[in-house]
Amino acid sequence: MKYISGLSSPVFNRTGPRAIAILGSTGSIGTSALRVAAKNPGYLHIVALAGARNMALLARQADQFRPPYLGVLEEQHARTLRDLLPAGYTPRIFIGLDGYTALATLPEADLVLAAQVGAAGLVPALAAARAGKVLCLANKEALVLAGGIFREVCRGSGAAILPVDSEHNALFQAFIGHDGTTVSRLILTASGGPFRTTSLEEIHAVTPAQALKHPNWSMGAKISIDSATMMNKGLEVIEAVHLYGAKPDEVEVVVHPQSIVHSLVEYADGSQLAHLGMPDMEIPIGYCLGYPQRLHIGLERLDLAKVGVLTFESPDVVRFPCLRLAREALLAGPSHPVVLNAANEIAVQAFLDGRVSFPGIARLIDRMLDGHDSLPVDNLDHILAIDAETRSLAEAAIAEGAF
Amino acid sequence: MKYISGLSSPVFNRTGPRAIAILGSTGSIGTSALRVAAKNPGYLHIVALAGARNMALLARQADQFRPPYLGVLEEQHARTLRDLLPAGYTPRIFIGLDGYTALATLPEADLVLAAQVGAAGLVPALAAARAGKVLCLANKEALVLAGGIFREVCRGSGAAILPVDSEHNALFQAFIGHDGTTVSRLILTASGGPFRTTSLEEIHAVTPAQALKHPNWSMGAKISIDSATMMNKGLEVIEAVHLYGAKPDEVEVVVHPQSIVHSLVEYADGSQLAHLGMPDMEIPIGYCLGYPQRLHIGLERLDLAKVGVLTFESPDVVRFPCLRLAREALLAGPSHPVVLNAANEIAVQAFLDGRVSFPGIARLIDRMLDGHDSLPVDNLDHILAIDAETRSLAEAAIAEGAF
Repeated sequence: MKYISGLSSPVFNRTGPRAIAILGSTGSIGTSALRVAAKNPGYLHIVALAGARNMALLARQADQFRPPYLGVLEEQHARTLRDLLPAGYTPRIFIGLDGYTALATLPEADLVLAAQVGAAGLVPALAAARAGKVLCLANKEALVLAGGIFREVCRGSGAAILPVDSEHNALFQAFIGHDGTTVSRLILTASGGPFRTTSLEEIHAVTPAQALKHPNWSMGAKISIDSATMMNKGLEVIEAVHLYGAKPDEVEVVVHPQSIVHSLVEYADGSQLAHLGMPDMEIPIGYCLGYPQRLHIGLERLDLAKVGVLTFESPDVVRFPCLRLAREALLAGPSHPVVLNAANEIAVQAFLDGRVSFPGIARLIDRMLDGHDSLPVDNLDHILAIDAETRSLAEAAIAEGAF
Repeated sequence: MKYISGLSSPVFNRTGPRAIAILGSTGSIGTSALRVAAKNPGYLHIVALAGARNMALLARQADQFRPPYLGVLEEQHARTLRDLLPAGYTPRIFIGLDGYTALATLPEADLVLAAQVGAAGLVPALAAARAGKVLCLANKEALVLAGGIFREVCRGSGAAILPVDSEHNALFQAFIGHDGTTVSRLILTASGGPFRTTSLEEIHAVTPAQALKHPNWSMGAKISIDSATMMNKGLEVIEAVHLYGAKPDEVEVVVHPQSIVHSLVEYADGSQLAHLGMPDMEIPIGYCLGYPQRLHIGLERLDLAKVGVLTFESPDVVRFPCLRLAREALLAGPSHPVVLNAANEIAVQAFLDGRVSFPGIARLIDRMLDGHDSLPVDNLDHILAIDAETRSLAEAAIAEGAF
């Protein structure tokens, strides 16, 4: 296997402070990243923060870290934000997708943390890669939709991609320093989510409130539902294929309810290297922000004797069909993962809104994949068109009912 | 932490076949290594085999691999061996410690596998390091006795040390490719041996036959008894301190009865990198013989879902005082580990011979450590003198009885 990008950015050789732009700073990953930054004030310097919805939080973050640049998606949010900032602090506020893209390519930024949720994060993340940044990628959809494009862009620009997702970060730590050509399998661990032991019958009636309760990780709503359906793991299988240059059948999933082993890389000799730790996103986020150094983030240490027992089981694709659908999309053709992701985003929002049932999420995705004929995804326009069309089709299907 | 040697041997950059000398080829490690060699005939080329006792086996190995050099410890063994070799095959046979040392420094050998048991392996292993060889070190006593000397010798000679012991090999795989200065702990896993759940009272009466039955690993008699007393883990703590340049309190032990997780390296950010695999010595041996490539050794793959459950617990130093004694020796002074090891070798042999009881092993070692005043161990002569004196004292103590 061959990693998606080189890892020879000049940023990695510098020992001085690092300038970081965070896109999606008000979300779960963004707030964790700022906790890590607050613990390493001399080393991690925030130059830009951008958030799409929670202006009160964005203003508090801006007040604390005082970056010279901020970003929001809408004009009215810019006004709200400006009013919330303290007197005497007048950062430049960028607006809209173009504004996010400007922040992703800021000359002052060494690292860009792409922590937006969903397909919306693709364009700025790709812009950061084109600009040769160190891209700390928490937005897995960027790779699900455009993994091949990222690989090509990084080759040309010298950008380095560091994976923030705990599983892919675990794989990264177990991958570097070893000969990638001798990797035989990537094994993603999955908590199994809140319905790991729920019967097929009971799963049909679960509510959004039940689905939002993840046993181990504190995460946003979208990823919590993806974890409940195991689509999160399906998307991660696709992400792993792109990040590590793996074949689909070289990526496996094992259910590990304790979320202590964060994934494993298997080598040709039967060795498996694993990353273990407490389930806290500050670890993979801090790893990316500090790479190749390690930051002190002062978390409780993993004590295996105290944990006592780690268990592992095979995933059940009957109760969790999304995992099967993701694999099928990966094998069907380059545009099917785009359809899978767009249909899933619409279905999850509709589930949260009470418009589709929990098993309806998988049924809607299945319908969208079934009706899709594979198309080329050679450039961003192709991808965005397929994404937009799928969203319309999915909304129309929901409006007709029966999911 | 800073690894004991550099890892820039020109051998590692060559893609062609490698010439290997195996000292201790008739033991458990040696025979496993030859199985690995037989699976990679184009790549691993045996130039020397040496064995101390089993001439019938040494002759069969020699017949199979046809190395130009053989080694034995005694003149009469050389004659026996010569008679057992097939007509037309006339390798040069080296004799005695000087002979072993000659094999360890053979100009034709790229790699030297030091797989002798006990302190007897020290002199040839050190000679290989002085000669700048890639030293695949299975003889943990070499480091327990002379770790500081090995570090110094490697700096001068450019020798590279690769650890064969499964735990230290696991640490090595989790250590390379990462910044050693950010390592916070080395965590050695221990199976707990055959008496992990045996009560303190019952342990007092165990027999050699019971102690030789290791639950997971197939090993020689000496190391099996060391595993039963957990002195094996104590020696490994000392070995880890020397190999990785760790402080004694940076090396911990966790009992893990399934022997699937082979040890873990903890980093400053709370990350723990672990090596997992089936408990088969061909994996770490093959890793060393192939480094930095990985050899195909065709073993059954680890399937965590099939294993199902991994458990971890703290070691019990009341029932297993040898673990405590090893730590005390490490802290007491540079010569105490030499005493610990020599007393242990005598005690284990006496236990196997029925001359001391199982708990008598620890009592004898404790007595020897108690009576020892720390001495400098700046050179091999110091070490060998302390080793020899301890053996005499230990034998005398046993002769007096009461162990």
